[in-house]
Amino acid sequence: MRDFLPEDVRRREYVIGIITRVYERYGFEPLETPAVENIETLMGKYGEEGNQLIFKILMRGEHEATGKADLALRYDLTVPLARVIAHHQSKLPRLFKRYQIQPVWRADRPARGRFREFYQCDVDALGSTSPVVEAELCAAVSDALTELGFSDFVIRMNHRQLLSSLLSVAGVDAAAHGDALVAIDKLDKIGADGVRDELARRGIGDESRTALLEFFQPSAAESQLDRLAGFVGDDAVGRAALENLQSIVSLASATSAAGKIRLEPSLARGLSYYTGAIMEINVADLAGSLGGGGRYDNLVGMFLGQSIPACGFSLGLERILVVMGERGMFPPTLATAPADVMLAVFTAADLPHALRVASVLRGHDVRVFVYPDADKLGKQIKYADSRRIPFVGILGGDEIAAGTVTVKDLASQTQQTWSQETAGPKILEELRRRAES
Amino acid sequence: MRDFLPEDVRRREYVIGIITRVYERYGFEPLETPAVENIETLMGKYGEEGNQLIFKILMRGEHEATGKADLALRYDLTVPLARVIAHHQSKLPRLFKRYQIQPVWRADRPARGRFREFYQCDVDALGSTSPVVEAELCAAVSDALTELGFSDFVIRMNHRQLLSSLLSVAGVDAAAHGDALVAIDKLDKIGADGVRDELARRGIGDESRTALLEFFQPSAAESQLDRLAGFVGDDAVGRAALENLQSIVSLASATSAAGKIRLEPSLARGLSYYTGAIMEINVADLAGSLGGGGRYDNLVGMFLGQSIPACGFSLGLERILVVMGERGMFPPTLATAPADVMLAVFTAADLPHALRVASVLRGHDVRVFVYPDADKLGKQIKYADSRRIPFVGILGGDEIAAGTVTVKDLASQTQQTWSQETAGPKILEELRRRAES
Repeated sequence: MRDFLPEDVRRREYVIGIITRVYERYGFEPLETPAVENIETLMGKYGEEGNQLIFKILMRGEHEATGKADLALRYDLTVPLARVIAHHQSKLPRLFKRYQIQPVWRADRPARGRFREFYQCDVDALGSTSPVVEAELCAAVSDALTELGFSDFVIRMNHRQLLSSLLSVAGVDAAAHGDALVAIDKLDKIGADGVRDELARRGIGDESRTALLEFFQPSAAESQLDRLAGFVGDDAVGRAALENLQSIVSLASATSAAGKIRLEPSLARGLSYYTGAIMEINVADLAGSLGGGGRYDNLVGMFLGQSIPACGFSLGLERILVVMGERGMFPPTLATAPADVMLAVFTAADLPHALRVASVLRGHDVRVFVYPDADKLGKQIKYADSRRIPFVGILGGDEIAAGTVTVKDLASQTQQTWSQETAGPKILEELRRRAES
Repeated sequence: MRDFLPEDVRRREYVIGIITRVYERYGFEPLETPAVENIETLMGKYGEEGNQLIFKILMRGEHEATGKADLALRYDLTVPLARVIAHHQSKLPRLFKRYQIQPVWRADRPARGRFREFYQCDVDALGSTSPVVEAELCAAVSDALTELGFSDFVIRMNHRQLLSSLLSVAGVDAAAHGDALVAIDKLDKIGADGVRDELARRGIGDESRTALLEFFQPSAAESQLDRLAGFVGDDAVGRAALENLQSIVSLASATSAAGKIRLEPSLARGLSYYTGAIMEINVADLAGSLGGGGRYDNLVGMFLGQSIPACGFSLGLERILVVMGERGMFPPTLATAPADVMLAVFTAADLPHALRVASVLRGHDVRVFVYPDADKLGKQIKYADSRRIPFVGILGGDEIAAGTVTVKDLASQTQQTWSQETAGPKILEELRRRAES
C-alpha cells in the first residue's frame, strides 16, 4: 500500500474528476459505502480464492483474544452495492443508476498497476434488463477513456449464457462448466495447446476439447456472430444469449462505443455472480485490463430475497494511472506549485503585514504561501524557486508604508511594484496568459 | 458505519470542496496515505484508550489461525503524516504544508456526529516553529467555516507548556501532571466542584487543588493573559509559553481569525503528542468540538530520529455536516436530480435514436437519463417526475423523421419541439435562468 505525495494526488484527482463528470452526464448518481463490512456480507461472494484475499478485522475488547474476525475490508464495490439496494430499498428509485469511486483492499501479491489498496471507479444500473443498459455502460466508459486521452482501447464482450450453451453443445457436463471456464479464460495467456492440456487435466473429454477449441478460435469480428450461431444451433439458451449480444452491439453502435466492441467467445471473467453479458476493456500496452463488468441479475437477490436485474462496469484507477504515466498523458499544467505567490519579509516585525496582504490576495482566489520566518531574503527566494512558485511578493519597509507589494517574477527575474489590492488580479492575469501560451 | 446515498454524498462533496479550495489558497498541498498501517506505527501513539479503539487486521494465509494482527486501520491523519515525513524525507520540501481529507476508524461507541468511520480534514505545516504557522492555521479554518456559512464559532486556545507551568506553580509533581490534566480538561462538563473531587481522587493535594481552580476560573478574555502572567510569575517555561500565545494571538489578529480566538487555560486536549499551542473550535449547539489541533514538535522525531517542528489542525467532517443539516445551511441547489433531462421513447425500435440524441445532448454537457425500456409513456414520465428530473425529451416517429425532439417541462406542463442540436443549449439556458431566479 502506498502514500500519495502531492503530485500523485493531483494526478489521481484529475482522472477521478474526468470520470465523475462523464458518469454524471449519463445520469449516474454518487454512492459511498463504508470501508468495513460485516464479514458474512463478503465471504462466499468472490469464490474460494477471494475468501483468502479478504482482509479480516479482529473482534474488539474482551473478544480480541479469541482471534476471531467479525468485520472485513471492502473487496469490491459490487457486493456492497447489492447490500445497499437490499438495505435501503424503500429510499431508492425503481431504476437506480449509481457511480462509486472508492478504494478496495485485497491481500494479493502486488504487480504492475496492481496494489493491495486500489481504487475502483464503478457504474451500475439497477432495475432493468434492457440491452440499453449494457450499451450505455459501454458508452460511458468509452467517453471517460476518450476524455482522458485514450483512443486505442477495445471493449471485449461475451455472454455467460453463450458460454454455457457452447459448453453444453460441446458435451461438457453442467457440473464441469466452472472448471472448463477457468481453462478457457486463459486462452490469451497460454494459447490453444495450453488450454487443451488444462482441459484434459480438468477431466474434459477429447471430443469436447476439440469442439471447444474450434468454437474459441480467433476469427474476424464481423463473422463472429454468424460463426457462433452455427455452433449454438438450436440450443435455446445460446440463441437467446446471441440475440442479446446482437441487441447490445447494435444499440452501442448508436453511441460513442461504436466500433470499440469486439465479441470474444473465450472471455469468461473470474467472478461467479455474472449472469449475462460480460465485458473487459483493454489497451495493447497493459497485460491486465483497464476495467470490466457485466450483468448480474441474481446478486441483489442474495441480500434481498427478491431478484433485481443489475449490470455494471468498473474501471481500475491505478491501471489507468500507470498507462497514462508511461505514455505521458497528463496535462503539463497539472504539476502545480504549492502556491501562485510566496510572501517574503525582511524582519519578524513585518510578518503581520504579510498576513494582511496574504488575506487580500486570497480574497482574489490567489494561492499564497506566507514564508513563516524572517530568514535572509536570498534563502526565502531560493525556497520559492525550489518549489517552482512563480512569484515572490516582497514586503519591506517602503512597501508597508506605501500599501504596496513588490512582486518578483522568478522566471524572468523582473519585478514590479503594485498596490496590495491590484497585485492579486495582476498575478492571476499573468498566470492565465502563461497557461494559454 | 454508514452508507451515503446520493444526497448525502453531494452534501459531503460540497463541504469537502469548500474546505479543499480554502486550504489550497493557503498553500497547503494534498497528501493521501493508505487506510491500513503497520500495527506498530499506530500502537502507543494515542494513549491507553487509543490502543483499545484501534481496528486491528488479522494476519493472512497460514498465519490467520494464530489470531494475531499485523496491520491496523488508520486512527487519525497525524501519525501517518509523521510516518510519511520520515519515510519520504528526501522527496519533501524543508517547509511542507499539506492537507489531507480521508476517513479514519475508531472502535468507539457512536454518538451524535460521532461514528466508527469518519472523515478528518487536516492541515499541517512542518518545518517551522514560527507563530505564523499557528496564526495561519487559525485563519485557514476560520475561512473554511466562514465560507460554509458559520459565523458563530470560537477558537479556544491554550498552551501545553503553560499548563505544565501552572501545574508546577500549584505544586503538582511532574509525575502527576497527566492525571491532573485529565481532571482539569473536564471543567466544562463537570464544573469546578466536579474537578475538585476528581483531582482529590487522583491524589492531588488540597493546596494544589485550590490554586489550580483559581487559575482555571473563567474570566474576561481581555484580562486573561495578564491574569495568567500573574500566576506564572517568573517560571521560565510558563513565561515562554505566554509569550508564544501572545505572538500567535497578535499575528492572528491580522487574519480572518481576528476576534475568533479565546484563551482558555483549562483546555488540555486528550492526545499526548502536543508540545505547544493547542486549539479547539466550537459552536454553541454542538457539545463536542468541530475540530482541534496544536503543535507537536516531537512526533516526527519518533519516526525519523530527528526532530521536525510541526503544527496542525483537523476539522471533523461529520460534526460539520450534523450542524449544517440541523441549521439548514446547505444551498437548495444541492438536492439535485440524477439528470437534467430524461429521454423517453414509444417503441423499442426508437431506442437507438434515443441513444444518438443522448450523445448529442451530453456533448453539450447536459446530464441525460435514457429511460431504458419502451414502457407506456405515462409510466416513463411518472418516473422522471418522481426523480425530479425537470425535463422529459420525447422521441416519437415524427421527431425522429424530422431530426427534432419534443421537450416537456414537467413543472409548467408545457412542451416545445427543438432541433436535436439546439435542445441541449436551450435546456441549459432554462436551468441557469431558474437557478438565478
